[in-house]
Amino acid sequence: MMTELSQIISQIEPLNPAWLDQARERLDSLTKPRGSLGRLEELATLYVGIRGELLPTLEKKWVVVFAADHGVVAEGVSAYPQEVTYQMVLNFLRGGAGINALARHAGARVAVVDIGVNHDFGHVPELIDRKVAYGSRNMAQEPALTREEALQALLVGVEMAEQATATGVDALAAGDMGIGNTTPAAALASVFTGKPVAAVTGRGTGIEDAVFRHKVAVINRALALHRPSSEDPVGALAAVGGLEIAGIAGFILGTAAARRPLVLDGFIATAGALVAKALAPAVTDYLIAAHRSVEPGHQIMLDFLGLKPLLNFQMRLGEGTGAALGLTLLEAGVRVYREMATFGEAGVADQDA
Amino acid sequence: MMTELSQIISQIEPLNPAWLDQARERLDSLTKPRGSLGRLEELATLYVGIRGELLPTLEKKWVVVFAADHGVVAEGVSAYPQEVTYQMVLNFLRGGAGINALARHAGARVAVVDIGVNHDFGHVPELIDRKVAYGSRNMAQEPALTREEALQALLVGVEMAEQATATGVDALAAGDMGIGNTTPAAALASVFTGKPVAAVTGRGTGIEDAVFRHKVAVINRALALHRPSSEDPVGALAAVGGLEIAGIAGFILGTAAARRPLVLDGFIATAGALVAKALAPAVTDYLIAAHRSVEPGHQIMLDFLGLKPLLNFQMRLGEGTGAALGLTLLEAGVRVYREMATFGEAGVADQDA
Repeated sequence: MMTELSQIISQIEPLNPAWLDQARERLDSLTKPRGSLGRLEELATLYVGIRGELLPTLEKKWVVVFAADHGVVAEGVSAYPQEVTYQMVLNFLRGGAGINALARHAGARVAVVDIGVNHDFGHVPELIDRKVAYGSRNMAQEPALTREEALQALLVGVEMAEQATATGVDALAAGDMGIGNTTPAAALASVFTGKPVAAVTGRGTGIEDAVFRHKVAVINRALALHRPSSEDPVGALAAVGGLEIAGIAGFILGTAAARRPLVLDGFIATAGALVAKALAPAVTDYLIAAHRSVEPGHQIMLDFLGLKPLLNFQMRLGEGTGAALGLTLLEAGVRVYREMATFGEAGVADQDA
Repeated sequence: MMTELSQIISQIEPLNPAWLDQARERLDSLTKPRGSLGRLEELATLYVGIRGELLPTLEKKWVVVFAADHGVVAEGVSAYPQEVTYQMVLNFLRGGAGINALARHAGARVAVVDIGVNHDFGHVPELIDRKVAYGSRNMAQEPALTREEALQALLVGVEMAEQATATGVDALAAGDMGIGNTTPAAALASVFTGKPVAAVTGRGTGIEDAVFRHKVAVINRALALHRPSSEDPVGALAAVGGLEIAGIAGFILGTAAARRPLVLDGFIATAGALVAKALAPAVTDYLIAAHRSVEPGHQIMLDFLGLKPLLNFQMRLGEGTGAALGLTLLEAGVRVYREMATFGEAGVADQDA
């Protein structure tokens, strides 16, 4: 499995600055003062650089939601019971969740992957069954995953990216569902950014002060037990990660290898990006940070990745909801770039003409 | 004309908090942790409050672009020649401008109003001809408009809002086109917020240091000459305003009177909002600030209006481009609110259940 992963990683290259220059040149010829569409112009430039063509289309969009459970909920770190994970998976498939509404708004398809939910779904059409295990183990007592499980989940993510690009998807977003998953995400944030656990841990979907302090203690205990290192990203993912986070990390790698943009969601998806960057530093060229989450550790992760979020909307839902909004903003940038007339075409006098 | 305006103003009422409470109650029943969609939930709540119904639709959207010229360009305050105003109007009508691309993205119609362009268009289908004058006069030497012209332009704006709502438009945005119009906008910002001219003046679409200092001096000269007061909003608009700014102010009043949301664009549209608020303080309940412009005075205006911008995208184009993005974000909030399943419907366990 490591060979398969290494092969994907070897395909990820930094963007070619020549494409970025060509995109900027075109933007400067459009009927507006130079640079006056700010971040929309940055998004368009990035998209041209990622796709490696002068007038790339942006039509087909997918949000892939990876769902998994977490043994660490046994420590009482979450405000919701574990069965909410599978109940929400069913809600996604019926179209009633936040991500469904926002993906419809973005014109994106939602694909839901069971990569490790602690529930037997039986045969549910539309659910993509890639269950690696019935959830991770309790990291406070043992490694969350074996190295093989972590690798297998990474490759599920790669497979999803390959499937999407094989069907002509232009832009991708990753989402998560997993009760308790801010705990492994905070643990990974601490491992990869080097910041103390208390600085990168938040209140998840809503816990009180005492539970918060307990959560920090649980993560510190797990880190002391396994001593994960950012030098061994797969090992760190196995020790204190989770299956949906591994799936997202693999999805990010597969997306970059296929030269497609990946719109990042919040705290959980960004933890996956930390793992992906540790495996292949050039992936950050393909990432668009949709928003800054309420989770205090999120900004620390984004700074570490060198990403500037598009929105600061006080969101903390996950599922890919922020990323779906990011997809609409990316598309806005691409439309400006593709659809606006040049000064010459429109017969408008330019400032420097 | 003052009677007509007073009648519109008398119809503008603050939002009924009962609707806001009902919206929040519904949001709390949806399958997500309470408040976890942050500003999207605020947008949905505001929309329910503005429309005054529990499940309002948001389908039809209009961006109305008011175009006019400015005599003050004779002072050399702009980087572009005046003919760009009419050239851009023609570009709007052909669909090649930034606002066209972004309105298409938002699913909104663009309506273009000639409220004071210094050009004879002849018969141009699609252009809404409400020309009050061939541009304003040079405020540094005489009042920009007569009081009657200012009133007439305000009523053109009201008429546009009435026309839109009569055809079933759910949400509106206002844009501007007018070479030189950051000068009157900055003058009005100083009059209504009480801040010094240098603090609210920026570089428009791109001028150098010396031109910037000259622009501040020109505005200060005009203010010293006319001594406009925020106590007489129509008088201030006539002294140092412009026809498109007056149109936008009237449009805002008409929109609020019709209980529709108005998504504000940048510096110029927000100057119109300052005039509207001075005439009818409750209009701010109906305003959504789409973005924070690069113009330094914009944040000062937004603070004065008590509005928190949705985006900080380093944009400075005008035309309603930021507002069009704001419309898509508003729609995202409304979709979440209308389309998500409740905990009961989805069979998902709630935190407090």
